[in-house]
Amino acid sequence: MKIAIVSGKDEGPTKLNAFDNALTSAGIGDVNLIKVSSMLAGNAKIQKLPKLKAGAMVNCVLSEITSDNPGDEITAVIGLAIGEELGCVVETSGINRTPTELIDEAKEMVKYMMDKREVEIKELIIEYSTTKVENIASCISSVVYLNDDIVE
Amino acid sequence: MKIAIVSGKDEGPTKLNAFDNALTSAGIGDVNLIKVSSMLAGNAKIQKLPKLKAGAMVNCVLSEITSDNPGDEITAVIGLAIGEELGCVVETSGINRTPTELIDEAKEMVKYMMDKREVEIKELIIEYSTTKVENIASCISSVVYLNDDIVE
Amino acid sequence: MKIAIVSGKDEGPTKLNAFDNALTSAGIGDVNLIKVSSMLAGNAKIQKLPKLKAGAMVNCVLSEITSDNPGDEITAVIGLAIGEELGCVVETSGINRTPTELIDEAKEMVKYMMDKREVEIKELIIEYSTTKVENIASCISSVVYLNDDIVE
Repeated sequence: MKIAIVSGKDEGPTKLNAFDNALTSAGIGDVNLIKVSSMLAGNAKIQKLPKLKAGAMVNCVLSEITSDNPGDEITAVIGLAIGEELGCVVETSGINRTPTELIDEAKEMVKYMMDKREVEIKELIIEYSTTKVENIASCISSVVYLNDDIVE
Repeated sequence: MKIAIVSGKDEGPTKLNAFDNALTSAGIGDVNLIKVSSMLAGNAKIQKLPKLKAGAMVNCVLSEITSDNPGDEITAVIGLAIGEELGCVVETSGINRTPTELIDEAKEMVKYMMDKREVEIKELIIEYSTTKVENIASCISSVVYLNDDIVE
Repeated sequence: MKIAIVSGKDEGPTKLNAFDNALTSAGIGDVNLIKVSSMLAGNAKIQKLPKLKAGAMVNCVLSEITSDNPGDEITAVIGLAIGEELGCVVETSGINRTPTELIDEAKEMVKYMMDKREVEIKELIIEYSTTKVENIASCISSVVYLNDDIVE
């Protein structure tokens, strides 16, 4: 299993467009995202996001937060734990909660998931995106599941 | 990439059943819908919805609105912009907002998405469904992604 | 079309972890769930859940309820109607509503869906999970769509 880890943020004239712009800034704006729940095969390989085919169907775990309240601090966090037998992904996001607080939350949740499955963590990775809202803004972080069908 | 654009509306004894009836009236009631985010490959071809296999897994963009408040005017809109390199789809829906207002919103959002990607719009298409709720009603509009596996 | 019907429940230190634990107790904790809307092919065959590959992409209908309010009675129900030409699945869940009430609701909704399609019900199946929340708990019931790619 090959995955890429990305994040992005941007403003936009509507919530939908801010979200779309954030996806584009993360390199996944031109594909169809299919949200899946959060498990990795054993020894998942992390790669740089390749160029994806426009309109491809792409499985991902997506952490997303969008706000149209100027001044809000918004943060979207993804936490990954890679193990030999399997891996786990958690997503968390918040408005006016510090990135540190959300990152700690993500770490604890993903550690707990691995403990519960009795799988040793070989690598723990946090990816996040945070911004202060000017007008309408969106932050996203994502684990993208790669396969040959979706790569250009 | 081949797509079909459909819409439907209906009443039902529960919100779930009203929604299901609206899907059936649109011709997509007997399949499993997997919601995807909203991008098209270049030069997407629009076709009439073929007869789909019962229980097939069908990717779609879905705009949906259901209400159990008699008298509500509900509207579900899909906007598509077709381009040479790629295309974009937006969904919007509303309760007691005029179809015209929602359609204008969809047009602006999808134009903005194409502008941002610097892709020229060859065709802009709006599909919508609107109704006044009698008891419990649902409106849906959808872009259905077609492939040989799902067609009867 | 082969399906498995499962349910589970558990407590956890966060809502996400309680939900994850409930999935694990149902046997679907180590895969990626892709939620689909609720239709079955004709004469769907029900099987015991096989061992699924870690990280596999698994289509399912998911009924889920999670609460962090100690004392809450939470219930997640799935109702299936199997027919010759096709089948229907409904999901319903509730907080502090009796399982009986939710099961009756599921039965009525799924019967209505089959009536509306003029398909005779050969078998009607209810699966549910219910619990009283101690601290943070989750109940899930699911119809899992099986195929060779996801089975270990």
